[in-house]
Amino acid sequence: MKSEVYSLKKIVTIIGDSETSNEKELKFAEKLGEKLAEKGYIILTGGRGGIMEAVSRGAKKVGGITVAILPSTDKKEANLYIDIAIPTGIGWARNQIVVLSADVVIAIGGKSGTLSEIAYAWMYNKPIIAIRGFGGWSEKVSGLRIDDRRKDIILPASSIDEVLAILESLSI
Amino acid sequence: MKSEVYSLKKIVTIIGDSETSNEKELKFAEKLGEKLAEKGYIILTGGRGGIMEAVSRGAKKVGGITVAILPSTDKKEANLYIDIAIPTGIGWARNQIVVLSADVVIAIGGKSGTLSEIAYAWMYNKPIIAIRGFGGWSEKVSGLRIDDRRKDIILPASSIDEVLAILESLSI
Amino acid sequence: MKSEVYSLKKIVTIIGDSETSNEKELKFAEKLGEKLAEKGYIILTGGRGGIMEAVSRGAKKVGGITVAILPSTDKKEANLYIDIAIPTGIGWARNQIVVLSADVVIAIGGKSGTLSEIAYAWMYNKPIIAIRGFGGWSEKVSGLRIDDRRKDIILPASSIDEVLAILESLSI
Amino acid sequence: MKSEVYSLKKIVTIIGDSETSNEKELKFAEKLGEKLAEKGYIILTGGRGGIMEAVSRGAKKVGGITVAILPSTDKKEANLYIDIAIPTGIGWARNQIVVLSADVVIAIGGKSGTLSEIAYAWMYNKPIIAIRGFGGWSEKVSGLRIDDRRKDIILPASSIDEVLAILESLSI
Repeated sequence: MKSEVYSLKKIVTIIGDSETSNEKELKFAEKLGEKLAEKGYIILTGGRGGIMEAVSRGAKKVGGITVAILPSTDKKEANLYIDIAIPTGIGWARNQIVVLSADVVIAIGGKSGTLSEIAYAWMYNKPIIAIRGFGGWSEKVSGLRIDDRRKDIILPASSIDEVLAILESLSI
Repeated sequence: MKSEVYSLKKIVTIIGDSETSNEKELKFAEKLGEKLAEKGYIILTGGRGGIMEAVSRGAKKVGGITVAILPSTDKKEANLYIDIAIPTGIGWARNQIVVLSADVVIAIGGKSGTLSEIAYAWMYNKPIIAIRGFGGWSEKVSGLRIDDRRKDIILPASSIDEVLAILESLSI
Repeated sequence: MKSEVYSLKKIVTIIGDSETSNEKELKFAEKLGEKLAEKGYIILTGGRGGIMEAVSRGAKKVGGITVAILPSTDKKEANLYIDIAIPTGIGWARNQIVVLSADVVIAIGGKSGTLSEIAYAWMYNKPIIAIRGFGGWSEKVSGLRIDDRRKDIILPASSIDEVLAILESLSI
Repeated sequence: MKSEVYSLKKIVTIIGDSETSNEKELKFAEKLGEKLAEKGYIILTGGRGGIMEAVSRGAKKVGGITVAILPSTDKKEANLYIDIAIPTGIGWARNQIVVLSADVVIAIGGKSGTLSEIAYAWMYNKPIIAIRGFGGWSEKVSGLRIDDRRKDIILPASSIDEVLAILESLSI
C-alpha cells in the first residue's frame, strides 16, 4: 500500500556562482535546468542570482518545480523563477541544507560558497557531478577526491548529455 | 515582465504533535490538508508523524504539493505523503525554518516542539492561527499575545471554515 | 590519568528579556551572576542586553567567565561583559545552542525568545529553574510541565538562595 | 568606562583532521596550542580528536582556556582537554560557527571538513593561516586565493615562529 501513496520526488541540487556574467555558462545552466525538469527532477538551488537563477529559469520554461534554500529570513531574496522559497535564516550554514536535500549535486563553476557546498556534498556522501569548461571550483575538483574517506571521485562532465548519462548510470 | 514568470507559491505551515493518537484531531488535520491543497496552497510541515502526516496525507489526496523540513540528515525520516523532503541536519533548530517558510502558520494541539514553533512564529512576525478543541499548546495560546512586541493576537479557530475565512481575511 | 586533565567546566545558562528596564529584575540578574560565578560556574547567555547583560556584569564583578552565543555574525553584538563571544550567524536558531550548552537553564522573566528557549530546554531534557516575581514567561511556566514527555517540572525559585539550593540538590 | 570592563578575549580557531595519526603533525599542533595559550589567546576548535585534541592538550598544559564547538547535542563528544563545550546540534553546519568565532583561523592539514571551514573562513573575511609541511588542504590552499572576492591570500606558514610572526603583523 505504501508504494501507492509514497510520493517523494528526486531532487537535483545545482550549485554555482551567484554573480557570474559568463553568458556561455549561464546558457549552459539554463539548458541544464530545462533538461533536468523535463526528466521530472525537482530543481533545488540556493535561490539567488547567477547560476541559481539561470537553472531555475530553464526549469520553469518547461513547467518544472523549483525550490530555493535561502540564507536570509526573507523570501524576497529568491530569484524570480522559484516556486517554493525556504528562508532558513542561518546564513551560509544553509549550504549544508542545499546539499542534504540533493539526490545528486551538480557544480557549475563557482567560488568560495560553491567550494563549501562541494566539501559538504563530499562529507554527506552525495554523488557529485562537476562541470568542466567554465573554470571555477567545479573545474578544479572534477575527477578528484576531496579526501580518502570516499573511494569514488567527483564525476566530471563537459556537456548536458554527459550529465544526463551520469544520472542514468547512478539510477537517480 | 516579471509578473509573467514570477512563480512563488503561497505556503501554509502546519505544526502539531508528531505522536498524537487522537482520531478526531488527526481527521481534522487530514481534512484541513485537503481543503488547503484544494485552494492551491503548498503544505509545509516538519515532515514527521502525527499531525504532520495527517495534513500531508489530506493534501496528497487531492493532488496537492507537500514539503517537509526534517531535523535529521536523512530523507527517510519523512512520512509517506511528502513530495519534497528537505533534510536539514540541524535538529530542532529546524523549527526556525519550518516557521520562516510560512506565509501563515497553523497550530493544531501540540507539545514542546509546537510551542517552540509558536514562539518562533511570533518572533518572526508570522500570522498564527491556533486551533481550539484538541487541547495542547494551540489551545493554550489561542486568542493571546506571546508578548507585547506585537499588537495582533494568535488567531483562534474552531473549524476548518473558520481557518479558511481567516486566510481570506489575511489575503494569503 | 584522564581525570587529571579532564577540564570540562559546568555551565549555567541564563535566559531572559534583552530589553527589560525593570530595575529589580536587573539587580536580581546581576546578583545571580555574581553568586553563580563565585561558585565557579561558567555564565552563558545569548550575549545581548537586559538580563543577559546584567547577569554577565555580575559574573565579571567577581572575576567569573562569561560566554555569549550570538545570533549574528558579529562579535560586536555582544554586551560589554562577555569574555568569549561566539557569533553563530544562524539567527534565533541559536536559541537551541544557548540551551544545549547548559548544565542547567535559569529563566528570569522573558518574552517570546525566552519562551522558545524554555521549550528547547524541555525538549533537550535540561533541568530548568524558573524565577518567580518578575512576571514574563518564567513566571507563567514555573512549577509546570511543558508536556507529558517529562515527569519532572520546571522548578520554581523566588530568591537567589533558592536557586543555589536547587543547584546543590541537582548536583550540578 | 567601557574599556575598564570590556573583557572580550581574542580567539584563535584551529582546524584540521580529527583522525590524523601523523605524530609530527600532532606534535606541531600541541606545541602551537601551548604557544598560543601562553600569548593569552583562547583556543577554539571543533572539539573532536586529532588536531583539535592535540592543540587543546597543548593549551591546557600551560593553563590556557579551550572552547569546543561540537556538531552533536552531547558535551561528551568533546575531547578531554576542553574547558567550555558548546554542543550545537546542527551537525557540520557548526563549521560556520567554528569559523565565525575566530579572530584568526589556522589550518593544519585537513580533509573535507577542514576544506569546508577554509571556504567559510574566506566567505566570512577571516584571516587564514595555512600550515605547510603536513599535506592536506592547508598545504593545497596555502598562498592562494579561494576566489577573487578578496585581495589577500591564505597566509602560508611552515613553523610556529612564522605563525606567531603573522599574528603579530595582523595585530591580533
